[in-house]
Amino acid sequence: MNPYWSRRLADVEPYVPGEQPKEGQYIKLNTNENPYPPSPKALAAIAAAAGEGLRLYPAPECGGLCRAIADFYGLTPEEVFVGNGSDEVLAMAFLAFFSPEDRIAFPAVSYSFYPVYARLFDIPYDAVELREDFTLDPSVFRKEHRGIVFANPNAPTGIALPLEEVEQILRAHRDVPVIVDEAYVDFGADSAVGLIGEYPNLLVIQTFSKSRSLAGLRVGFALGQPHMIAALDTVKNSFNSYTLDRLAQAGAAAAMEDQEYFEATRQKIIATRTWSAEALEKLGFTVLPSKTNFLFASHPEASAAALFGALRQRHILVRYFNKPIVDQFLRITVGTDEEMKALLCALEEILGR
Amino acid sequence: MNPYWSRRLADVEPYVPGEQPKEGQYIKLNTNENPYPPSPKALAAIAAAAGEGLRLYPAPECGGLCRAIADFYGLTPEEVFVGNGSDEVLAMAFLAFFSPEDRIAFPAVSYSFYPVYARLFDIPYDAVELREDFTLDPSVFRKEHRGIVFANPNAPTGIALPLEEVEQILRAHRDVPVIVDEAYVDFGADSAVGLIGEYPNLLVIQTFSKSRSLAGLRVGFALGQPHMIAALDTVKNSFNSYTLDRLAQAGAAAAMEDQEYFEATRQKIIATRTWSAEALEKLGFTVLPSKTNFLFASHPEASAAALFGALRQRHILVRYFNKPIVDQFLRITVGTDEEMKALLCALEEILGR
Repeated sequence: MNPYWSRRLADVEPYVPGEQPKEGQYIKLNTNENPYPPSPKALAAIAAAAGEGLRLYPAPECGGLCRAIADFYGLTPEEVFVGNGSDEVLAMAFLAFFSPEDRIAFPAVSYSFYPVYARLFDIPYDAVELREDFTLDPSVFRKEHRGIVFANPNAPTGIALPLEEVEQILRAHRDVPVIVDEAYVDFGADSAVGLIGEYPNLLVIQTFSKSRSLAGLRVGFALGQPHMIAALDTVKNSFNSYTLDRLAQAGAAAAMEDQEYFEATRQKIIATRTWSAEALEKLGFTVLPSKTNFLFASHPEASAAALFGALRQRHILVRYFNKPIVDQFLRITVGTDEEMKALLCALEEILGR
Repeated sequence: MNPYWSRRLADVEPYVPGEQPKEGQYIKLNTNENPYPPSPKALAAIAAAAGEGLRLYPAPECGGLCRAIADFYGLTPEEVFVGNGSDEVLAMAFLAFFSPEDRIAFPAVSYSFYPVYARLFDIPYDAVELREDFTLDPSVFRKEHRGIVFANPNAPTGIALPLEEVEQILRAHRDVPVIVDEAYVDFGADSAVGLIGEYPNLLVIQTFSKSRSLAGLRVGFALGQPHMIAALDTVKNSFNSYTLDRLAQAGAAAAMEDQEYFEATRQKIIATRTWSAEALEKLGFTVLPSKTNFLFASHPEASAAALFGALRQRHILVRYFNKPIVDQFLRITVGTDEEMKALLCALEEILGR
């Protein structure tokens, strides 16, 4: 290895995000962005903050934004932590709750950033198997796991775990931190937020990137009892005092307050998802039951890699993971009705229907 | 300790940033912000980016911004790393270049975030002493130090190390990474950027928060040979794929391109610093020779703590560090001419002149 690099990088394999094409007209269904623009109120708040005041540091504790999130969920600001995207919140949670001495666990088929964090911070882990139907068996986590992370709904499958089973995990592992990554929860799954009062071991992580159309602003957050939030604050204040710039704080707070817009756009996406899944099934696809803004689908007669390439040639980007178990699937973001119609036309053509 | 917290938090003592008053009219000379607004071109670029496009993730590699910085310094984009403020860049550099197995060194009187990073990431360190006059002796770093960090100019003293002595350190420690934190370099010190070609061990870190009036936008950067930048990229892509939002990328690139505005504002600050230092000396202060946008000053007849409190009562915020060696000094940000006149009036009154 390079003699100047830290030895901790020897084992690290960075995460590779989905492609952000720089030019060209693509129908972009590859990174689970929201097809609808951010709330006009969020854009107005950003415009108002984008002036001379940028010469000053932002509020390090992000009080206004924490309050807006707390109000939305009926929590106190002391139960809210915000960060520069839910990826940063997750990274800080790995530092805050897991130690090199203790083995943690997360599903083998899940967000592929989890093992990356674990390796960077030297945290031993078990990647536990899902059932054959891609659902999570709550009893797969064991006593020797001193920390648990899972996404609900899961990515890239889109499958949600019923709230009773989330609670079953929290109850069985009351003495260890359990992180529920709810990046996609607003598209139809049940959030664990209501369990925070009862479970001191619970940390819920969410994002503004999906249901609030603000992937480009980088804001994520965590919800939990104050002692859980304090651990995250300790890490954050030992890493970067000011993780959220003035524009992100202003825009995200306004987006959180615009409940009407949030409701309208997420309902549109759920409706588009419903008919799109049915249409894909009519084309012969197996589509996992999705509670997210994406569909995870495989076709018995066409390889996912080939479909991915053929769609790309037609300027439609979807996500393909060249990894065991999931390499027969495409992950397709739910776009607008028009985008999904274009996708289905292209697939009909490719499949020769 | 809390049973849910990582054991790595046991030793951690977070950094405490300077106060950001939420309301009230203060003359704010406590966090080394620039008294002049950001470049109008930066604000225009932010306004242009603050639209529907925010629903999409930003470019993870921040190509446009890296190019703008590379062009400014006559480097290639492969020699540039950008992050969410220079604090994040520093944190990632500690992860990228230092290991728990190896002792590093930085000056005892310097940016107080260095020991915080070291403790968070379990990196053993020596806090080496400055000379009596607060200058850095280049030979204070020894062979057993497997990494070196220093600020040039130093904070909170404001004193710059001559470039020959920076090079002396780089030459004597060619086999270990040397990080030169140049947050304040644009106010009159010599940058080590010109040494990057010759020294594979050099990493220079700078920020948009001071000389480019964008503390509220959170953008910092590192410059070094491509193998040094690659280490930072590896950490960043194992921590957070998208550290800079779309608005920060657009605004910072435009600020970097507006060289004329940058020159004009930094010259104004240097001019204000010069007369302000002389005026403080006339009031009996000892003022260290500053190459930054702040003055580090002590008074033989008044305690720094008392002066800090008396100024605060008069709605003037400066920074006071209640720590050995520096607790007889005030760190005073260089504001506008009007702000410095108000400060001097207040000090005259307090000192009874």
